[in-house]
Amino acid sequence: MTCNVRQFTNVLSKLNYSAMYEGDFFLTWEKSREELEAVFAVADALRHLRKNNISTRIFDSGLGVSLFRDNSTRTRFSYASACNLLGLNVQDLDEGKSQIAHGETVRETASMISFMADVIGIRDDMYIGKGNAYMREVARAVAAGHNDGVLEQKPTLVNLQCDIDHPTQSMADMLHLIHEFGGIENLKGKKIAMTWAYSPSYGKPLSVPQGIIGLMTRMGMDVVLAHPEGYEVMEEVIGVAKDNAGQFGGKFGVTNSMGEAFAGADVVYPKSWAPFKAMEKRTALYGNGDGAGINALEKELLNENAKHKDWECTEELMKRTKGGKALYMHCLPADITGISCKRGEVAASVFERYRGPLYKEASFKPYIIAAMIFLAKVKNPKNTLEELERAAIKRHAGV
Amino acid sequence: MTCNVRQFTNVLSKLNYSAMYEGDFFLTWEKSREELEAVFAVADALRHLRKNNISTRIFDSGLGVSLFRDNSTRTRFSYASACNLLGLNVQDLDEGKSQIAHGETVRETASMISFMADVIGIRDDMYIGKGNAYMREVARAVAAGHNDGVLEQKPTLVNLQCDIDHPTQSMADMLHLIHEFGGIENLKGKKIAMTWAYSPSYGKPLSVPQGIIGLMTRMGMDVVLAHPEGYEVMEEVIGVAKDNAGQFGGKFGVTNSMGEAFAGADVVYPKSWAPFKAMEKRTALYGNGDGAGINALEKELLNENAKHKDWECTEELMKRTKGGKALYMHCLPADITGISCKRGEVAASVFERYRGPLYKEASFKPYIIAAMIFLAKVKNPKNTLEELERAAIKRHAGV
Amino acid sequence: MTCNVRQFTNVLSKLNYSAMYEGDFFLTWEKSREELEAVFAVADALRHLRKNNISTRIFDSGLGVSLFRDNSTRTRFSYASACNLLGLNVQDLDEGKSQIAHGETVRETASMISFMADVIGIRDDMYIGKGNAYMREVARAVAAGHNDGVLEQKPTLVNLQCDIDHPTQSMADMLHLIHEFGGIENLKGKKIAMTWAYSPSYGKPLSVPQGIIGLMTRMGMDVVLAHPEGYEVMEEVIGVAKDNAGQFGGKFGVTNSMGEAFAGADVVYPKSWAPFKAMEKRTALYGNGDGAGINALEKELLNENAKHKDWECTEELMKRTKGGKALYMHCLPADITGISCKRGEVAASVFERYRGPLYKEASFKPYIIAAMIFLAKVKNPKNTLEELERAAIKRHAGV
Repeated sequence: MTCNVRQFTNVLSKLNYSAMYEGDFFLTWEKSREELEAVFAVADALRHLRKNNISTRIFDSGLGVSLFRDNSTRTRFSYASACNLLGLNVQDLDEGKSQIAHGETVRETASMISFMADVIGIRDDMYIGKGNAYMREVARAVAAGHNDGVLEQKPTLVNLQCDIDHPTQSMADMLHLIHEFGGIENLKGKKIAMTWAYSPSYGKPLSVPQGIIGLMTRMGMDVVLAHPEGYEVMEEVIGVAKDNAGQFGGKFGVTNSMGEAFAGADVVYPKSWAPFKAMEKRTALYGNGDGAGINALEKELLNENAKHKDWECTEELMKRTKGGKALYMHCLPADITGISCKRGEVAASVFERYRGPLYKEASFKPYIIAAMIFLAKVKNPKNTLEELERAAIKRHAGV
Repeated sequence: MTCNVRQFTNVLSKLNYSAMYEGDFFLTWEKSREELEAVFAVADALRHLRKNNISTRIFDSGLGVSLFRDNSTRTRFSYASACNLLGLNVQDLDEGKSQIAHGETVRETASMISFMADVIGIRDDMYIGKGNAYMREVARAVAAGHNDGVLEQKPTLVNLQCDIDHPTQSMADMLHLIHEFGGIENLKGKKIAMTWAYSPSYGKPLSVPQGIIGLMTRMGMDVVLAHPEGYEVMEEVIGVAKDNAGQFGGKFGVTNSMGEAFAGADVVYPKSWAPFKAMEKRTALYGNGDGAGINALEKELLNENAKHKDWECTEELMKRTKGGKALYMHCLPADITGISCKRGEVAASVFERYRGPLYKEASFKPYIIAAMIFLAKVKNPKNTLEELERAAIKRHAGV
Repeated sequence: MTCNVRQFTNVLSKLNYSAMYEGDFFLTWEKSREELEAVFAVADALRHLRKNNISTRIFDSGLGVSLFRDNSTRTRFSYASACNLLGLNVQDLDEGKSQIAHGETVRETASMISFMADVIGIRDDMYIGKGNAYMREVARAVAAGHNDGVLEQKPTLVNLQCDIDHPTQSMADMLHLIHEFGGIENLKGKKIAMTWAYSPSYGKPLSVPQGIIGLMTRMGMDVVLAHPEGYEVMEEVIGVAKDNAGQFGGKFGVTNSMGEAFAGADVVYPKSWAPFKAMEKRTALYGNGDGAGINALEKELLNENAKHKDWECTEELMKRTKGGKALYMHCLPADITGISCKRGEVAASVFERYRGPLYKEASFKPYIIAAMIFLAKVKNPKNTLEELERAAIKRHAGV
């Protein structure tokens, strides 16, 4: 088997991504297009090396700290996989679901858990205005700790999902598209429909639709956001998507018709989320400890949801896409009609037909996370990747 | 200190175990006798190397996923130890005690946790007809994921206890016997009494007695299963034991007398378990969410148990064994009369006399698990073991 | 960058610490002064190597078992960091908060979790007369297991906080002082005030004040213990502190005035704790399962506490210290007036001024734990440290 990492490192040579070194990863739209491309190149390179049984351990020891505000099998395993790929051991910080630490408490805890931490991965998507802000507080705290000589190294912060963006998801989704369409340059002009879909549950985070419209507009795609009236996402991210479309030669539009969004689409991403305004309201209710208010809001939202059961990705709708063969995407788990619920986001036959590609889509996430860490921690990523290949230490000595 | 792994690898040269490569380990009776012997040889070899401070890490990185349906300190640590011995990091999947996933959910979860997984260890012994079936579903899912290019490697599945068998326990038990009797060939004709014993608790799994009668009959032993009427084990496994006895030149019998089983025995294994029929009933009650039914069944079983308090491994009974000196075995923890409960499975003085051998028995389990993984993941186990010895990388550099 | 570990190993050459090899670490006053100095030298050496990106992994594989009786982010991360620094993987044993195992159960569990364990770290500080005793039981059990051939290696036991001492905290505190005052010899004659302080909570462990007076008196310091009447610590440790003062040329006194303790102090350590007698009582109540008694005791203690709100480390009190500039210390987290509570142990402005040094103080703990393990597991620490430097394996290959 020929193994040549140069096909990926050659791409790196043409990109300027030096600002990522010793940086953090909060939002995709804070990164330049070349920096995003560097993440894809490194992710592909790491996957290539591992596939060829070449170790990608750049750490002999070190910790990857994780902080998840709610249960998360998928993201937890993706993060653990990324850390393991690079030689880091995961140490979980369990602060509890409800407790929102802030101010000096954050600063103190961040320092206390980071003595040997090379990375901190945080998932905190429950409260509007809190998750991303918390991550930045942690990042500032450990940077200060490093400057003060408390920490021997500055851990890099990776956003594993916040109230604004879900960069490891959207980047994995895009790498999937790059592979499906045969290259990043082929995304230009492709139509992607990021649409709301009905789910019997409520309150699903906005970070996926926001992350998708904020990222896909970077590559000149024709991005349509579709949802019933009232299910608006964060205004700020709409602005990001519009600006991107202008700057990168793509399109961005919003519609209240699922059918319109699907018409001629190359890619569809139907998924439930909660209205931004409702989530803002919920955050305030939680802040006030208003349990009755939270229950009332939940009832109201479920009632509203129930009016839009027709927002389902059916075979009929799929027929309206480009050649009837748009690529169906989802961050998983999906609410599948007749399987995981009575009525859901997607028809069982559609989901079943795309099961293979969906799992492939998910499989990019560990490599995307590892690439984000790699670019933040490695001084000369091109050289280090080529050296890993040259050294060719077997990941698994028994084959 | 002379260290020569050849004493173990020479055994391997004479055995045919090639079908274990890239396989799984569900039930001992699905493996050939030579395959079982290969597990013992590799387990001994790994222990020998570690004892001589030689690293047995064949993985530079990689994950060992664990899934335990109930609390399990011993098995958890044995599995973690086995993974560590080979260089894998353990990542726990906590699906909760009660939730029995099935169908496509299993397929999806199995894929999502396996991107970097070389092994998946599952303990699922609570529900009749479910545990082993679930393991096979997971194994099929990850094999499919590997074929589809979703997983870079196919994780091997190790049964850490199911509703049918407990192969890592029974194999560790047998390796203990091999060491106690000075060789696998010396097991032939030895009498082992696998007997029920009284415990104040109820509902203990059947996997140990079933595993023992299913395995010990493979080596030409004289296996007697003893229990009060009504405490029958799975019919299917009785069939396995009978067939084995015929095929491998041993004996298998069932009796309702503990004394008869003990008479002249070389080995005794007194342990509580629940009647198979009752466990089947309980599984159905759980399936229907029938809490009242479960409570009624529990009461009934405890009443029935209480009639058999005389099924205790006492000094008197031990005197009836071969020379009064049968080897006492248990998977631990045991219910010890006057120590852990008022009346239990074994008299305190008997247990105390065998404490050393009991802990030794348990100490084989990590090596058995590691050997199962090794044979599934290593292409040429003989060469790899010899190379580990030649390389002689110190496990602990400070001695 | 010059990197020379000899500055630390040269210190080791002059010390006799050979008895630490294959030993455990229970109480600082069981160790000779030279042994304590060896811990500091090794801790500094390990930190020096890591700072210079040199791997300090002496273990290629192996487990560090942890057992925490209550939640503990800080100690948990310090222990995990120490294990990671040396190449060990942490495996947590979760026995539950309330359950106090004893006797043969301890012996059995200790053996079952230690097949691959090189270290066992225990935090068990809740019950008077239990924590330290439990640790010794575990240490005896694994020593026996090793002798019996059950365990291939004897794990070393590290006391991560017990009812009597908190050696990893007090040793980290002292290493901080050594760095602040420019050498261990400069501690002689320095005055340290270990004083009680008000906290709205009750029942904080005595191990910190006891650990501090038991250790700081070893270096010829002038140690003053201050607390309101009734807040006496363990009589036995008072005896240790007095003996130390006599033997090592320092002073030890007890006062009921915070101001007196602060007067002219070089170092102040104001911290809440519960009266020893009350903790003894509470242990008995827990033993009897007397919930009402526990609640009554809690109320009584909180009432008593409330009488001493003036025991706060204020700016006024700080002015009474040597030049108004005593080093403020705390094991963290502190109860800060107006920040974490209405009235607490320390004024916000005092705490804020010392935030940098406080975090630095905490940063020594992982290295202290690692040094304790290192000295127990490495035959020739001086050689091994110098060899690590010579080999110069990069901890992080990407820089």
